[in-house]
Amino acid sequence: MDLARHLDARRRIVDAALARVFPRSRRQLREAIRYSLLAGGKRVRPILCLAAGELAGAPVGRTLPFACAIELVHTYSLVHDDLPAMDDDDLRRGRPTSHKVYGEGQAILVGDALLTEAFAVMARAPGVRPDRALAAVAELAGAAGELGMVGGQALDLAAEGSEPSLAAVRGIHALKTGALLRASVRIGAIVGGAPPRTLRALTAYGEAIGLAFQIADDILDAIEDADADGRTDAELGKATYPGALGMDGARRHARRARDAAVAAVRPLGTKAAVLAGVAEYVVGRAEAAADRAVSAG
Amino acid sequence: MDLARHLDARRRIVDAALARVFPRSRRQLREAIRYSLLAGGKRVRPILCLAAGELAGAPVGRTLPFACAIELVHTYSLVHDDLPAMDDDDLRRGRPTSHKVYGEGQAILVGDALLTEAFAVMARAPGVRPDRALAAVAELAGAAGELGMVGGQALDLAAEGSEPSLAAVRGIHALKTGALLRASVRIGAIVGGAPPRTLRALTAYGEAIGLAFQIADDILDAIEDADADGRTDAELGKATYPGALGMDGARRHARRARDAAVAAVRPLGTKAAVLAGVAEYVVGRAEAAADRAVSAG
Repeated sequence: MDLARHLDARRRIVDAALARVFPRSRRQLREAIRYSLLAGGKRVRPILCLAAGELAGAPVGRTLPFACAIELVHTYSLVHDDLPAMDDDDLRRGRPTSHKVYGEGQAILVGDALLTEAFAVMARAPGVRPDRALAAVAELAGAAGELGMVGGQALDLAAEGSEPSLAAVRGIHALKTGALLRASVRIGAIVGGAPPRTLRALTAYGEAIGLAFQIADDILDAIEDADADGRTDAELGKATYPGALGMDGARRHARRARDAAVAAVRPLGTKAAVLAGVAEYVVGRAEAAADRAVSAG
Repeated sequence: MDLARHLDARRRIVDAALARVFPRSRRQLREAIRYSLLAGGKRVRPILCLAAGELAGAPVGRTLPFACAIELVHTYSLVHDDLPAMDDDDLRRGRPTSHKVYGEGQAILVGDALLTEAFAVMARAPGVRPDRALAAVAELAGAAGELGMVGGQALDLAAEGSEPSLAAVRGIHALKTGALLRASVRIGAIVGGAPPRTLRALTAYGEAIGLAFQIADDILDAIEDADADGRTDAELGKATYPGALGMDGARRHARRARDAAVAAVRPLGTKAAVLAGVAEYVVGRAEAAADRAVSAG
């Protein structure tokens, strides 16, 4: 299997489905929603959800609304995190952030609308058993809410400027990023009706890929920040893995998380090739970038 | 039946249930959530939901999680609407607003957490048929989202400073306030398994009470604003009924909406006494306040 081609094909399916959730209209809020939602993300979370669903026996079309819901939640979190009162970012994926283009008030509403619509999309998903759809709603709300992503962002905001310990970094990242990645995999499994043993294996995978993803992201950010202006996230007082462990330590942790992810789905056999491949891909990309940075520096 | 005593008893039931959704904890975000959620609202939306549920045959305990979910959504909307980038209010129910106490970033997260938890609470409601719980999720997300409450707030924000026509006022209010009140009644009916004819009657009631509520609220706000500093919402360029119709016209419209609400549930007989009573109460309160203002002025 050509993983890169598979990921690309899946990304297109997700992009098309997301555009159908919010079709073009002349209303300004709609335009602002589409600006952030259709900005060319990698769609890792929905792709993981679809892969877990397929592994559990659900066709892509059945899991697709849930995969879209997860990306709506992810996009809302980016829009709100970028706000001046939060991380105060002017650029996202190389373009001005939502509040820079539409103003702060509309950007808050863009996030609110994306979050709300995620639940509407799941509740209206055709051909899914209501008990499974409802379990998916509970899973996504739990991962995104006060004891998940929002809670992590609150801790991150409160900790800004303090020296982050590794335990603090771990805790904040597990909530901010890990919870939603774990839920992405679990929701696919739930919609597909995975038996308990499979759900457990996929949950373990989801936790490991969540960790791998966070560390890899921190590594890429650290390299990018160093390229841009020499100020790393760590120096800005943000809790990151390279900040807490150094670059070599962070890379070692990323490889360990990748290995755990691959090991978790090994019992599921070749059906889990995409999931294992994503774990290799995520960490491989960060390692390659770190190697390039070392040889360039 | 003593309506005031009934409303008061229901309000206590709802308050206690809301406090159980977010029990006390030492985390700062939790404290901030409780500050806004347990600030002594009238709980009109959950009370309407419970009344519609009972009318359809569901015991209060079964509808209660859904009633709470609606209040969580209502409270999130107040917290976000009060933000500096939105209506920029310093006071809410006589206390400093969330962002004044906890800062803008945490206030945004308080709203995000409340909105997200609303869906978790519905998805985990015990003893409700999954198809009905899922229909309630769809109903609440639809009413709260881009084509409902959030959409109304976006239009309101975009229209600020312009002269509001009656049609514009109607449209914005129907989305900002009407959609959630209509959904409150419908969700009770859906959870209770109301037959189509009853659901239709309750939907008509929900639309009329939504309108009555909006006009009554505008009337009360106009009186309060005039008391406080002489600047009315209308003068601030906000779209209101008294602004578009004058005080007498607004009162006439409120009475008409009340009559439509009462008429909608008349075929349901004495079971609908609470719903009819709430319509009388909402408009009666605004009329009494307006009468007092006239005799005082």
